[in-house]
Amino acid sequence: MGPRWKGKGAEAKALADPMSKIVLKLQSSLIQSDARGILCGSSVLLAAEEEQALLFGRAYFGHPIVNADKDRQWFQLGMEEAFFLCYSLKCLKIAGEDKRLKDDQELWQCMKSKKAGFPVFYKAYSHLRTKNWVVRPGLQYGADFVAYRHHPSLVHSEYAVLVSSEGDAEANGRLKLWSDVHCTLRLCLGVVKTLLVLTISKNGDDDDSPSCLANYMVDERTVTRWSPEQSREEDTSDDVESQARE
Amino acid sequence: MGPRWKGKGAEAKALADPMSKIVLKLQSSLIQSDARGILCGSSVLLAAEEEQALLFGRAYFGHPIVNADKDRQWFQLGMEEAFFLCYSLKCLKIAGEDKRLKDDQELWQCMKSKKAGFPVFYKAYSHLRTKNWVVRPGLQYGADFVAYRHHPSLVHSEYAVLVSSEGDAEANGRLKLWSDVHCTLRLCLGVVKTLLVLTISKNGDDDDSPSCLANYMVDERTVTRWSPEQSREEDTSDDVESQARE
Repeated sequence: MGPRWKGKGAEAKALADPMSKIVLKLQSSLIQSDARGILCGSSVLLAAEEEQALLFGRAYFGHPIVNADKDRQWFQLGMEEAFFLCYSLKCLKIAGEDKRLKDDQELWQCMKSKKAGFPVFYKAYSHLRTKNWVVRPGLQYGADFVAYRHHPSLVHSEYAVLVSSEGDAEANGRLKLWSDVHCTLRLCLGVVKTLLVLTISKNGDDDDSPSCLANYMVDERTVTRWSPEQSREEDTSDDVESQARE
Repeated sequence: MGPRWKGKGAEAKALADPMSKIVLKLQSSLIQSDARGILCGSSVLLAAEEEQALLFGRAYFGHPIVNADKDRQWFQLGMEEAFFLCYSLKCLKIAGEDKRLKDDQELWQCMKSKKAGFPVFYKAYSHLRTKNWVVRPGLQYGADFVAYRHHPSLVHSEYAVLVSSEGDAEANGRLKLWSDVHCTLRLCLGVVKTLLVLTISKNGDDDDSPSCLANYMVDERTVTRWSPEQSREEDTSDDVESQARE
């Protein structure tokens, strides 16, 4: 299943304006303005001037919040989004509710304490964002994330992402039962997405510091329904059997 | 969400021909013919003469199998279906692959060994069948069963049924994670069914004989999505708040 672009010209628009460059621009802008977010519950709040707000929108991080501040647009970032800007892109500093800036180590501990399985979810999130996918919460589709090839105004999300981990009970509870597998695949079919299962191997139990992320391996697997009817006729062009015969 | 009848007149047809009576007719027919099924893998095979085959179709037990036997129609029954005809309706005898008839106790042990969680699934199945619902496998919708108000030719299935049990790991793995809950509800919305969760309380660990079923309690719960937009306007006619005020 390929990308489903939203109308004519959307693909060309996306090609002319790669997501990698938009994120780079946002990164520069945040570094230049010495951007600071405030950790508030399970999200990070951040104010942006007009131009920066546009870049937030184009890179599709967080969502804008309606408030009375006329000069600046406030954004609410999810924990993975905020940590990605902070730790991976080094363009955001985050303060706790006491207004004191947290270093990477403190922020990591704090996010781990707020969200079970954060290290594993973050690895999955940053894995996809680093590959220039736009990654958003997937709860609406019963997934952990959804991934878009470009901005959601140009293209429908292509993948429903489930995060799984061998060592982590929190992120590990799905797809154990056939009924769950069928449910998930049937829903993906209904909403025209491909199920992407990211399995994180931890190579060690130590997750006290975010440096452990370098040891995490990500295994990408897409799961699709097998239709006996569709698979019955042999495709002689490039299927496994014909290749084996060559 | 009410029943979705298939076309005009379907509801009247169903009313004129209650499922309870159809099942009674099938029961009499099976008793009269001293019907015997053969346990074969995880299903029970059974041959029916023309009139009985029609009753099987109308009561919607099992599915017909294409074979070379011109005089009789063969049916393949699922384990819950076969055990229901055998144990609850007392109208079917079942032989093992050695052709020797099994008594209820032997059959129970045999089905338990073939399907993890069989006692709990059977309780759920028989609970719904006894209330004259037509109960079919629900795997296509990621559920344990689907339930129809009458024959599937007249009405769409109304409930996707998930079976849960406090003491039974096998039947107990679903809806533990929010992503699973959302996935299931979103799918139910897509296929216009209501999610029905049947929770079986066992009252004791002894399931060596089918008589334990009498001690099983069934808790019925339907789960629907809550839409803040829909729920914002107060419906003054019969909502909880207005009742409380009275």
